[in-house]
This record gives sequence, C-alpha cells and structure tokens, in this order.
Amino acid sequence: MLDFTGTYTDQYQLTMGQVYFLKGHTHHTAVFDYFFRKLPFEGGYAVFAGLENLLEILKDLRFDEKDIQFLKQLGLNKDYIEYLKDFRFTGTVYSMREGEVVFPTEPVVRIEANIIEAQIIETLLLNILNFQTLIATKASRMRLQAKGKMLIDFGLRRAQGAGGYHASRAAVIGGFEATSNTRAGRDFDLPVSGTMAHSYIQSYEDELSAFRDFAEAHPENTVLLVDTYNTLKSGIPNAIKVGKEMEQKGQKLKGIRLDSGDLAYLSRRSREMLDEAGLDYVKIAASNQLDEHLIKSLLDQEAPIDIFGVGTSLVTGQPDAALDGVYKLAFFKEEPRIKLSETISKITLPHKKQVFRVLDKHGNFAGSDVVALSEEENPQMMFHPSDPLKHLSVGGHQKEPLLQKVMENGKILNDSRSLKEIEAFSRERLDKLPKEYKRFFNPHIYKVGLSEDLKRERDRLIDEHKVK
Amino acid sequence: MLDFTGTYTDQYQLTMGQVYFLKGHTHHTAVFDYFFRKLPFEGGYAVFAGLENLLEILKDLRFDEKDIQFLKQLGLNKDYIEYLKDFRFTGTVYSMREGEVVFPTEPVVRIEANIIEAQIIETLLLNILNFQTLIATKASRMRLQAKGKMLIDFGLRRAQGAGGYHASRAAVIGGFEATSNTRAGRDFDLPVSGTMAHSYIQSYEDELSAFRDFAEAHPENTVLLVDTYNTLKSGIPNAIKVGKEMEQKGQKLKGIRLDSGDLAYLSRRSREMLDEAGLDYVKIAASNQLDEHLIKSLLDQEAPIDIFGVGTSLVTGQPDAALDGVYKLAFFKEEPRIKLSETISKITLPHKKQVFRVLDKHGNFAGSDVVALSEEENPQMMFHPSDPLKHLSVGGHQKEPLLQKVMENGKILNDSRSLKEIEAFSRERLDKLPKEYKRFFNPHIYKVGLSEDLKRERDRLIDEHKVK
Repeated sequence: MLDFTGTYTDQYQLTMGQVYFLKGHTHHTAVFDYFFRKLPFEGGYAVFAGLENLLEILKDLRFDEKDIQFLKQLGLNKDYIEYLKDFRFTGTVYSMREGEVVFPTEPVVRIEANIIEAQIIETLLLNILNFQTLIATKASRMRLQAKGKMLIDFGLRRAQGAGGYHASRAAVIGGFEATSNTRAGRDFDLPVSGTMAHSYIQSYEDELSAFRDFAEAHPENTVLLVDTYNTLKSGIPNAIKVGKEMEQKGQKLKGIRLDSGDLAYLSRRSREMLDEAGLDYVKIAASNQLDEHLIKSLLDQEAPIDIFGVGTSLVTGQPDAALDGVYKLAFFKEEPRIKLSETISKITLPHKKQVFRVLDKHGNFAGSDVVALSEEENPQMMFHPSDPLKHLSVGGHQKEPLLQKVMENGKILNDSRSLKEIEAFSRERLDKLPKEYKRFFNPHIYKVGLSEDLKRERDRLIDEHKVK
Repeated sequence: MLDFTGTYTDQYQLTMGQVYFLKGHTHHTAVFDYFFRKLPFEGGYAVFAGLENLLEILKDLRFDEKDIQFLKQLGLNKDYIEYLKDFRFTGTVYSMREGEVVFPTEPVVRIEANIIEAQIIETLLLNILNFQTLIATKASRMRLQAKGKMLIDFGLRRAQGAGGYHASRAAVIGGFEATSNTRAGRDFDLPVSGTMAHSYIQSYEDELSAFRDFAEAHPENTVLLVDTYNTLKSGIPNAIKVGKEMEQKGQKLKGIRLDSGDLAYLSRRSREMLDEAGLDYVKIAASNQLDEHLIKSLLDQEAPIDIFGVGTSLVTGQPDAALDGVYKLAFFKEEPRIKLSETISKITLPHKKQVFRVLDKHGNFAGSDVVALSEEENPQMMFHPSDPLKHLSVGGHQKEPLLQKVMENGKILNDSRSLKEIEAFSRERLDKLPKEYKRFFNPHIYKVGLSEDLKRERDRLIDEHKVK
C-alpha cells in the first residue's frame, strides 16, 4: 500500500548522516535501543506490534529517483548523495516477538548497523512501532472487556489519514476479529465485514423495501440497520418481517445493528421483540462512539449485544494520541554511550543489552523484567532504575531472554507469521500475565529493573559525563 | 506516496453497491453532503483542508487487479464485479475552497454522482478531509498563539503511521513554515528542516568536537542541540565557542536548540549568554512536547524563543483524535432525503444546498452562514436549526456563496494551487473573521442557520417520516 522510501525520515537524520559520511564514520557500528517510557491508557501492559511490517519495509528500503533529485535540490554533499544512491539497510535487528507483552523502559528492539543506516531508519521505525503498538494495546483492552463477544473495526473514516491502514492490522493483533477496511483486509488477509449505512435506507421510499432488497441481494450476510427512522417502532418490526420472510425461503437473518440511542435499553428491547417473534438466533450488533469503557459498561448492564463495532477510539487510540517510544544510542565505536538528563528516569541505558523475563514456578510471568548486558546469562539481582535502595533477588527464578535476532545483515531470518498467529501468540503471552496487571482500573505496576552489571556501568558513565 | 485504490473504503459501501447494482439504481444521481458537527479543540472555527488532495485521488481512482481478486474472494456478485472493473468516479463535486474557514453543520462539500460511485468514495473522502481539517485547524491555533515566530513540524516519528505524511501537508495550510518530514517536503514542495539529534552528540567523545564537525559539514545550516549533557554549563558555552570560531571563517552560527528542562528559564539564560558573547544573531529554537497552550505560556512569559518545533500534538491533533465529519444523503431519484434522530441536531438537512456567508459592510464576516436550497439566490431570513423561536434577518447584508463547482463528471475544473497559495488564502479568510471567534478560551459561537425555504422543507419531511 505505502511506498516507503529513504526520505520517509526526518531531515536531521540526513544532515547528521552527511557529517558521519564526510568524517568517515561509516565503518563503525552503532547500537540503538527502541523503548517507550509510559504505558498508554493508564493500563498495566502494552502489546508490541508492527515488527514484521517494519522488517518487510527495511528489507527493501531504497532512495528512489525522486528522493535523489530532492536531496540534490536540498544542497546535500554530492559524494554523500552518491553514497545514498546505493543505500541498503544492512544492519542486524534483535527484537522481542511481535505480539509480546511489553513494559516501559525496557529495550523492545535493538538495532546494530552502521551509524548512517541506523539513523536513517529511526523515524520509520518509530513511526511504525509507536503507532501499531498503541493500537494493538487499545484493541487488547477492548478484547479483555468484551470477553467473548465479537469485535469489529469500523474506524477507517475517522482514522488519521492513511494511518487507518495499519490501525486495522494492529487491531487484529490486539484481538479484533474483523474490519470494515476492505483494503487492509485485502493486504493483511483479514476478515472484512460490512452491510449497510443509513444512506442505503434513506435511498428507498420506505425502510421495509430497503431491508427486503438487501436480504435478497445478500441472503447469507444480512445485518439490518434499524435506527434510521425509529428503532423500536419501525426498524425492529420491519427487521422481524424480513426475518420471517427469510425463514420462508430457508434463509436466516444474521443480525440487526443499533447505531444510536441508549444501547443498553434498545438492545434489551430489541432482543425481547426478536425472541418473541422466534428470531432468537438473530444477533445484535451495536456501534456509535464505543470504547473499552462503554463496552464494559454495556456488559456490566448485561446488554444482550453480540457484536461491537468500534471506530474512532480504536484506530486513533483516543485519548492517547501516541506511544512515546524513543530510539537511543547505546553503543558506538566499541564504547558504551549515555545521554544525561536532570531527571534520572530520562537517562539512557548504555551498552548492548538483553531483557530477561522472570518466570514463576508455573512458567507464568512473575512480574519483573531484568535489563542486563547482552553477555550476561543469568542476572541474580535486579535494581530499581532510579531508587538506589530498591533491589530484588531474582536468582532462584527461571528467566526467558526476550530479545532474539530477527534480521541479520539486512535479511529477515524467520518466516513471516500470519496475523492470526501473531494474535494467538499475543493471547498466550497475555494469559501468562497475572490478572492484577490486566486490571481495568489502577493495575499493578510491572517491575522493570537493571542487572547489577548494567547498573554499575550506567552509574560509572553518569559520573564520567557529569559536568563538574 | 499512497496507492489509493477502490478498496480503500468500508466494506459496506461495496455490499450496498451490490444491491444498487442488482436493482438497477445506477442511473440515479445521489447527492451527499460532507459536514462536521463539532469544532475541535474548543475553538471557534476550523480550517478546511485536504480537498485538492482528495480531487487528485478521485480523478484516478480504480479497482486494481488485486482489488478485483479480493472482491471475487469475498463472493460478491460476478456482474457487479465486472461493473467495478470499469469503475471511474464520474461525479460532480461542489466544495468550499481548501483553506476556507468553516463551521459545524454546514455542508462543506457536496457530491453529486451515481449512488454506487458516491458510496464507494465516502470512506476515502471522510478519511482525507476529517484528518487534514483537524490538523490544519490545530496548526492554525498554534500559528495564532505563536504570532510571528517560526513554527516547524517535527511530528513524523509520533504520527499515526502513514497519517504523518498528510499531517505535514495540512500543518503548512494551517500556518507552519517547514517540516522535518523529508518525504512530505519532496512530494508537497515544503521547506524541510533538520540538523541534529542527541545521538549525534553522543556518538562523539565530547560535545565540542560534535559541534565543530557539524559546523564544518553544514556551515550554512548549523543549529546546535545543547542539552545532551548540561545546557548552561556545557551546551551553551560550547555553542558559543563554535559560534566565535565560525565568525573567524566568515560564517554565522544559525541557532541553538533546547529540547528539555524549563524552556522559559533556559531560553532566557541562553539568550543572555549568547548576547554577552556577541552572538545576538543566533536564533533560539525550542522543542519538547509543545502545543498551543505551551507556546502561549512561553510567549506570555516573554521567553526569547524564535523557533518552535512541534511534534505529537500537531500531527495527531491531541487531545482531539478526529474531526467528527459525516457524509449524508440529501437527495436521490429527484426526491429530498432525510435521516431522523431523537436529537433534532442530528436530523440531516434534505435537498441540494448552498451555503451563504453573511458579510458586514467592510466585507468581513458578520458571524453567520446561511444554509439554503441550491436554487435560492439571496435568503432573507436565517433560522436556528433547532430552536424555532430564534431567527435573524440577513436581508440587508451582502453574502458570498461558498460552494463552488470544483469537479465535473470526474474532471478537476481548476488548476491546483501550491500549498503556499492555499495557506495565503486561508490566512486572508481568517483575517476576515472577527477576533472574538479566534479567542483562545471560550470563543464566540459562529451562527449557522437555515433559510426559510430549507427549514420549511426539512420540517415537512420530518413530519412525513415521523412514525405515528
């Protein structure tokens, strides 16, 4: 769908690249970490998404002819532009698996590449991973509240432009079953769903004829929108008529959809009317500005809704517009690198690192991830990143290393998984997360700490760089 | 950039289309209105954006081979799929000009097309216009607060996926001067801007060498990022050194950038230190989670900042994720159409319509737009849309009809304008809007009402469709 080229980046990546190029820094490998600082939606976890998408783009990333023309127009150095003509991403990527349950401050992806390549891909990487992780997390929150009910993405019309395309992909990773977005369905092999809008009913002289024509054209897939004129006095009675007529032909009305009014009340009344007419198999779908709070509230009220269609709040992640993911230099020219800040939580973690997830004796998540140096095999202690008094022994626990090599010298190492497989993996991981962390309000805070070796290195570098 | 095809739509457009096709409704023209119901950001106006982009896409919209394959896979009717193979948008579009200052409930765009075409483009139209209007409006709010200071879009990394591409376009319409987004710069002919990140400084053993190398590689465009280690003790003193060295070579340091800490305090101290060193021409740029509220606050404090770099809140429209624009059927088969609702403000307006902007005697906006039937030439009275007691005489005023034909039978009628021209037009229009409507807090509410003829028609149709 999207024609990503080398200029899909921030201009400063290209101006910095020119300095690296002119100063001959291209032979040195830089190590960057991708991580975020704050969980969205006041939740207790995030669902990592976008990785396989990103790798596919990195594999083929080039500066095309128009890009090169534009760089000339911008007055960049000629030799540097020549170098960019042959640009390929030839780096190595370590990452958590797409669908993993992830937490703030831990490296989720580690990039090792020559510094020009590593910088040029920064913006693309952040753009893709920040957004898809935001939306997969939002979708996962809705999935937890919707329990076994069906969830459908209706968001494209209110999505942030072409962002809607990847939003539909991420929604499925978070647990949505289908999308109204035909193009995303086509490209990502998602189930698509869609029946009728108000305009369709309005285009007829009367609602009943509109319903009948639809049932005739789509007997296997008729979901009647019942609120164009009056839900209980017109929409539902007409839907019942058509449902009974379909029965005569050996067909079954699939559902009705409510799109306005008090959904708890209307779904209950609609269910009663349908059941009284013998149409107890007809499903009730509901839409209209839904989010996880409304889904929870409707189900707390035992509203008999079978299918939720969710738009704006899903595909935009409302009320959180963005995951605050960043990409920070940790190692360069064989030296660990750090960025200082007046707030200790904003100081970066130096060195090539690994993340260990601590498991309990059942193999579930114990509630702690340890960020360690990449060569450590089994860190024994975990230190709070900013409070020197807090530490925890994790020696007796099994641990899983979460960062695995997924791309080597620009080549993808694993076969790509279907979104269904990614979703299933994500569900499995979320099942291992104790329920306090999945609580809707005020979830328990998952601990991410530093190994003793990493902490010592970080503190040493802080001291070294402090301006006296 | 984006490969928009026929399937960039909601699936229900295609299932409804199948009914229209099988029932032979393709010869009938449908008239749809695009309008929104609520101004974003608690503001007093919106800046309409995305139109020329949309028309370019409509002009070439097709179902490509992959689309057709997918429609077959979905089991749509074969004859209908054949019809879609030849799909072109052959409709006519009336619209306000891109950059126009617009208000809730008034039709901003009117589409006249065969009903299948009109439905298929609905999602695309909403996706593009809702988002770009949201972002242009956000940008415009920042422009008003930033007064004459320079504004640069830094948003791509936190944008909602590929939405960032069009966000940069819309930001310029709203008054931004430049973008960090190289690809948007390339495709929309925008000034691009970018110098260095923290990683660049970190890649050096010391800050001073990093600054020197940059100045050497980009003598015309050096903006030094001064907060990697310590802004006032290290960043600014090193920037001053490099600035003085550049003077020796007959060059000029362009600026420094602050990206953390108290920007009011740091900008003031930085200004003093630079001025004392004779570098009073060096500009101060600031970034870090800025929005219109922070820009206003910084300038209220007289922070000596010359350039604001704005990211997340600009390109995502935070805290409003979406403009609530809708697309409603108003006329079909030579008959006016209406959608009822229990809330009178959600009842749609029937008929082909025109919007008249009422002018005061100086040619400025008087604060009222009248929505009228398209054949009306000079409505005399304007009625409140939901309060029958409120009406206003507008007979003595000059009026401008705002909806103009911009596409006829699928062909664009006017030459496309550059974004600079659209921005200039928008600024001109905003100048005509009295300042009470541009007030930052609690702006005056601009009136949008109905002409007497339109009100009569709407009330007649409500009565006709009411379920007794």
